[in-house]
Amino acid sequence: MSKTQSSPFAATPEPPYYIVAFSSARTEGDHGYGAMADRMEELALAQDGCLGIESARRADGFGITNAFFRDQKSIIAWKNVVAHLAAQKLGRERWYKHYEVRVAKVERAYSFDLVEGERLGEQVD
Amino acid sequence: MSKTQSSPFAATPEPPYYIVAFSSARTEGDHGYGAMADRMEELALAQDGCLGIESARRADGFGITNAFFRDQKSIIAWKNVVAHLAAQKLGRERWYKHYEVRVAKVERAYSFDLVEGERLGEQVD
Repeated sequence: MSKTQSSPFAATPEPPYYIVAFSSARTEGDHGYGAMADRMEELALAQDGCLGIESARRADGFGITNAFFRDQKSIIAWKNVVAHLAAQKLGRERWYKHYEVRVAKVERAYSFDLVEGERLGEQVD
Repeated sequence: MSKTQSSPFAATPEPPYYIVAFSSARTEGDHGYGAMADRMEELALAQDGCLGIESARRADGFGITNAFFRDQKSIIAWKNVVAHLAAQKLGRERWYKHYEVRVAKVERAYSFDLVEGERLGEQVD
């Protein structure tokens, strides 16, 4: 349960796979948010079918977490994990002013690395 | 060309639509990045088929920009806009250590608002 990513980037496989894009505006103050966010990330990464998580939050409280999953089944399984259901409830009660969740199937992906030069998994155009 | 979003959230329609998830690690220093990022956001929002943009960057330089598009055709059109091609080139030369681009088709979406209570566009489970 102590599985964590060493990089801010998720090591996702070749498509297809799924992205759960979670955008949120936080309420003021922490109210246990930081600790719960860390716990949920750890729990998600330990979940079968979770391929990785990427997350960034601005100083004004707006943040994006993109979580990657193997398939729809593993997304639904994660959504219904008991500890995660409790965290979702607290999220609505305490931590979030607004959020948007978008579930999407990744069709293609490519990347760039300054050291290695451009590597294109699949060109867009 | 002065179209901007008043909210950090994109006002996306009912699915299906597309998400272009752009995750990046920045190099040190600005080197004209901030001004170009603002210009590209403005230009993207003015592009036919661009539905909105959400963006967050951490203090350590890791950031996520999720851009939403009507369809594949409008994504490819945006990728090939001349000013954007120039920005992409500068991105690889100056601004980014690493980036990952994932193009995905949004199949379902739901949201929450603290004032209005939970509105579910389509439940996941």
